[in-house]
Amino acid sequence: MARYAVVKLGGRVLFKERRLDLEYVRGLKEVLKAALALYDGIVTVVGGGDVARNYISWGRELGLSESSLDMVGIRLSRVNASLFWAYFHGVTPPDIPATISEAIALLPAWRLIFLGGLQPAQSTTTVAALVAEALGADRLVIATDVDGVYEEDPKVNPQARKLDEVTVDQLERILVRDVRAGGYALLDSLAVAVIKRGCLDARVVCGKPPSNILAALRGEREGTRIVTT
Amino acid sequence: MARYAVVKLGGRVLFKERRLDLEYVRGLKEVLKAALALYDGIVTVVGGGDVARNYISWGRELGLSESSLDMVGIRLSRVNASLFWAYFHGVTPPDIPATISEAIALLPAWRLIFLGGLQPAQSTTTVAALVAEALGADRLVIATDVDGVYEEDPKVNPQARKLDEVTVDQLERILVRDVRAGGYALLDSLAVAVIKRGCLDARVVCGKPPSNILAALRGEREGTRIVTT
Amino acid sequence: MARYAVVKLGGRVLFKERRLDLEYVRGLKEVLKAALALYDGIVTVVGGGDVARNYISWGRELGLSESSLDMVGIRLSRVNASLFWAYFHGVTPPDIPATISEAIALLPAWRLIFLGGLQPAQSTTTVAALVAEALGADRLVIATDVDGVYEEDPKVNPQARKLDEVTVDQLERILVRDVRAGGYALLDSLAVAVIKRGCLDARVVCGKPPSNILAALRGEREGTRIVTT
Amino acid sequence: MARYAVVKLGGRVLFKERRLDLEYVRGLKEVLKAALALYDGIVTVVGGGDVARNYISWGRELGLSESSLDMVGIRLSRVNASLFWAYFHGVTPPDIPATISEAIALLPAWRLIFLGGLQPAQSTTTVAALVAEALGADRLVIATDVDGVYEEDPKVNPQARKLDEVTVDQLERILVRDVRAGGYALLDSLAVAVIKRGCLDARVVCGKPPSNILAALRGEREGTRIVTT
Amino acid sequence: MARYAVVKLGGRVLFKERRLDLEYVRGLKEVLKAALALYDGIVTVVGGGDVARNYISWGRELGLSESSLDMVGIRLSRVNASLFWAYFHGVTPPDIPATISEAIALLPAWRLIFLGGLQPAQSTTTVAALVAEALGADRLVIATDVDGVYEEDPKVNPQARKLDEVTVDQLERILVRDVRAGGYALLDSLAVAVIKRGCLDARVVCGKPPSNILAALRGEREGTRIVTT
Amino acid sequence: MARYAVVKLGGRVLFKERRLDLEYVRGLKEVLKAALALYDGIVTVVGGGDVARNYISWGRELGLSESSLDMVGIRLSRVNASLFWAYFHGVTPPDIPATISEAIALLPAWRLIFLGGLQPAQSTTTVAALVAEALGADRLVIATDVDGVYEEDPKVNPQARKLDEVTVDQLERILVRDVRAGGYALLDSLAVAVIKRGCLDARVVCGKPPSNILAALRGEREGTRIVTT
Repeated sequence: MARYAVVKLGGRVLFKERRLDLEYVRGLKEVLKAALALYDGIVTVVGGGDVARNYISWGRELGLSESSLDMVGIRLSRVNASLFWAYFHGVTPPDIPATISEAIALLPAWRLIFLGGLQPAQSTTTVAALVAEALGADRLVIATDVDGVYEEDPKVNPQARKLDEVTVDQLERILVRDVRAGGYALLDSLAVAVIKRGCLDARVVCGKPPSNILAALRGEREGTRIVTT
Repeated sequence: MARYAVVKLGGRVLFKERRLDLEYVRGLKEVLKAALALYDGIVTVVGGGDVARNYISWGRELGLSESSLDMVGIRLSRVNASLFWAYFHGVTPPDIPATISEAIALLPAWRLIFLGGLQPAQSTTTVAALVAEALGADRLVIATDVDGVYEEDPKVNPQARKLDEVTVDQLERILVRDVRAGGYALLDSLAVAVIKRGCLDARVVCGKPPSNILAALRGEREGTRIVTT
Repeated sequence: MARYAVVKLGGRVLFKERRLDLEYVRGLKEVLKAALALYDGIVTVVGGGDVARNYISWGRELGLSESSLDMVGIRLSRVNASLFWAYFHGVTPPDIPATISEAIALLPAWRLIFLGGLQPAQSTTTVAALVAEALGADRLVIATDVDGVYEEDPKVNPQARKLDEVTVDQLERILVRDVRAGGYALLDSLAVAVIKRGCLDARVVCGKPPSNILAALRGEREGTRIVTT
Repeated sequence: MARYAVVKLGGRVLFKERRLDLEYVRGLKEVLKAALALYDGIVTVVGGGDVARNYISWGRELGLSESSLDMVGIRLSRVNASLFWAYFHGVTPPDIPATISEAIALLPAWRLIFLGGLQPAQSTTTVAALVAEALGADRLVIATDVDGVYEEDPKVNPQARKLDEVTVDQLERILVRDVRAGGYALLDSLAVAVIKRGCLDARVVCGKPPSNILAALRGEREGTRIVTT
Repeated sequence: MARYAVVKLGGRVLFKERRLDLEYVRGLKEVLKAALALYDGIVTVVGGGDVARNYISWGRELGLSESSLDMVGIRLSRVNASLFWAYFHGVTPPDIPATISEAIALLPAWRLIFLGGLQPAQSTTTVAALVAEALGADRLVIATDVDGVYEEDPKVNPQARKLDEVTVDQLERILVRDVRAGGYALLDSLAVAVIKRGCLDARVVCGKPPSNILAALRGEREGTRIVTT
Repeated sequence: MARYAVVKLGGRVLFKERRLDLEYVRGLKEVLKAALALYDGIVTVVGGGDVARNYISWGRELGLSESSLDMVGIRLSRVNASLFWAYFHGVTPPDIPATISEAIALLPAWRLIFLGGLQPAQSTTTVAALVAEALGADRLVIATDVDGVYEEDPKVNPQARKLDEVTVDQLERILVRDVRAGGYALLDSLAVAVIKRGCLDARVVCGKPPSNILAALRGEREGTRIVTT
């Protein structure tokens, strides 16, 4: 059986002061190249980031539905995926897949592919979880701007304790769902539900420095491990 | 602005004793034909029904992932959609859309289209809500085997009171989410969340007789109306 | 030049008493895995089986055209192909190809792919023959519920003699074509015509036990060999 | 129910001395424009003609399989369809459909569409019959270079009598199948089988002058009518 | 014959101080709605604007090829097209066409469609000219941030005289081609060449206020008319 | 990084006296097979040749737009690509890519792919340059019927001197652009512009004998080298 991994890269990790963080992207390339020695295929799901947020605010002023706003954000996340594909493979990329089936069709030949969002009312974290489940992936790494899951929101309570491990049931209690376009929490409840039913080996890590992602892909102790059993 | 409606037809309404209920399908045709006089376009989302359940149980015995089981169920719901398309339009149908974008591309020319499921870990009720939101539909009718939303599960407590109206917040408290393949509840929490954020005019009705669906499409008092404000 | 093989798996072999024969499917996996050592690519074409037959009977009662009934059957055979793809590769599959060109586009990267039917008024045996011809396949194995070609229908005349070899001209005389949806004979005349013009190395074997298929793929004496010259 | 017609235009009618017969194509435009007043949609299937024959002979010298030769011929018939689409609609055409489903998806919006071949080992006459069956078409007109069906091949026996009507069973006895690429007879047996099972109102007419086609589309007595009951 | 128009909206018209100019977009909606009374179909091609410029500068720092940078810009122009589609039709849009053929396939059913770029090394003005030629459009309106074609660049020589009419030959002498990604001139030479060979009725107008575009679509004297004969 | 090459084969090289030059095509197969040892992937772009010219003249008499004529030529170049694909790979080919993105999606799995034209008003030489730029190709070989670039058109001035090297700026001065369908010059200005901005290692060689192409792919001194710096 082929070994696969899925990495979710939040927009907050990729953008710094409304600009793509180029230094970070360069580091990421080294990390994913190294990780290809460990897996037959890696799918990286990237978020929309600040640019998506701008577009969504413009669309909201025009009175677009939340569904259309989400699609605008999804298309921007695919622009990000496209830029990454070009940078990592050195070629002008094929169309970024719009369904899980399309993504899976490309994986055997490309080994390293990049996705953005797929559907309205769905976070890119959920996309990553769905792809991981569809591939029977050995590992799902969620790279975000905090270094793991906390008992409480660390931005609200700075005393909150980081957890090395968290069960999905604990996680469900901690998280509050928010499905307004562009405003998803760290982990939405659908992502957690997919991790749970798919018994996925999922880890939440701080995406910076990129070596954290490699450590998590190697199965090293990093961030918070989500325990599904 | 064009006027659109979306109808969700649960597998339980369409199948009787493991067979497609042909009498019912015939009645449905009259209803949807009549409804085309009220709307510029109608999207009908059909579930997988008993046949999907069989396939899913076979796949589970083979050790398929929940994701793959869901995809098998989705493909069966598209077979149902295909059979309906052929019956309602009298032609061998085009491919059943696999994304919301594909569905919307076909709608202006066809006016009446049929979908099955779209993605793993997503009920066809959520598909219907997403399509309704994407179209800015004037009405979403969820046709199921009970005559509306009850305070409690009427199968558990036969004394439970049917509600004429229910707010989305009430609804969220009533429903319990279950995302194992093929085992979704009446309304899963993602469908409710989309109804809420899209301020959709959604109604839950008993799909039998089919005239209930027409009544709901006409905005008549039928089943339970979900109040989003 | 790459070496390819095509296997046709009749619905009768896959289903037993209206259920997918799971034991058989498990055995098949071993066989196809072993066969991948012999070929650069293998295309397996699966029939619709009992479930397709049910759907077709429902559609016929609704007055669907033979064309639409065939398409319903085709879509069900693709559900079967999808379930097999998931089981053999351990991933949620890409969309099952709907044309020969799409099938061939996927083969180099996947090596083992699964198809259902392609067009109305065409058996999956014909699909298998067309794909074999398109690939210049080294071998076409037609796995069915009889152990080869008989001089006469063995269900009618139990005394009928099984043939070790049959020329395509003999075969054409033996077979009677029947193009009503879902009711194809062992080998329809179009399949035979393609085998003939493509000079395909075709064998008809009993699909059970699955080792028969491996034997035929190895070129061992098994079932009936169709002689094209 | 929408009313549809399908017209098959043989390559022999369209080409004269290895050149497209432009005068004829101009006349055809008037005919199809007039016919659009009678039908909601018309599908015209065009053959490959002399150019296809050249390509196929080149490919045969290179040792291509019959399947690949057929695909080359199919692609040339689609070039013809593309040229017609441009001429009849005055726009650079969309991609010529490669499956029946794709053709049907385009029909409601375009009303008049043009197809070439679809699959190896299949004549464009069979394509026309399959499309007619898929649409539940009211009429299928096969325009060729003879003025109907004869008891015997009129090129062999000049005394042969033209038939005003022929039953499908008579027809099957008259025709001899030939599936070598590019060399199909007037009507191959698969086309006849589809006409039979679909109970299609099919007529074989001489495509020249084009007014014959209009007469046949109007249901007037022209050429040979194929009787299916 | 159907009447079509094509409008090119430059990124500079749509964006103001790095933000989408919402007031302008609202005005545009009125203009295009009014214009639909004059034409059977209108294709609006939108540029990438400031956001595309940012992305391209990031990609350039990462060392992407000009081809990949162009594709990133193209994908951003399609995000803009997608936002416009949602705003003008009130629905979450289908996928933005990636070829001229795909665009033309959608036009009859939608009547008003939005495109971004199509290919590397090609301006959206060229896209607009190519689509206008492909449709045999009656009018091509190029809306930009200057009020027409000047004898010299008005930003360099403020004394330069605006031309009411310009022949394509004059135009070719005035323009200087520049194919670096994102830095196209008012009208690149390929756009001019297509206008010339297609004898298109093309006008360059100041896109602000939007009523200028309507005037040009009505054939009123506005901006500079390009004379092709 | 993967190593790629792109070869443009002009219609004039492939056709001799209105027939495909089969001897030449056979020689080409050896050359491309040998070249696959040097590159990870090779894209060959083929022109339309004489057959395309015939079709275009027919379409012009019917009054088709230059855009539609170009598309007819493009579709014929894809027929050529399809015939080559079948001959070089021994299989009935997948659909010939219609965009650069589709081409790139197929390359990793197939390694040797064949394209025709992509868009109206664009030569296949420009297609080859665009694909080379998109792939970051190490070499672009333009095989035509002259042995390199001359100071002047050698057909006009037989004394004209062949250049071993030419800078892109020199080249731009030498070439005259002509965008009428089917009548492109040796190298159109857009192709030169892409070669320039992409800093492509481009060579113009006489396509006959095919060994010239192999020499150029090996980087040997052959024909004219275009110097971009």
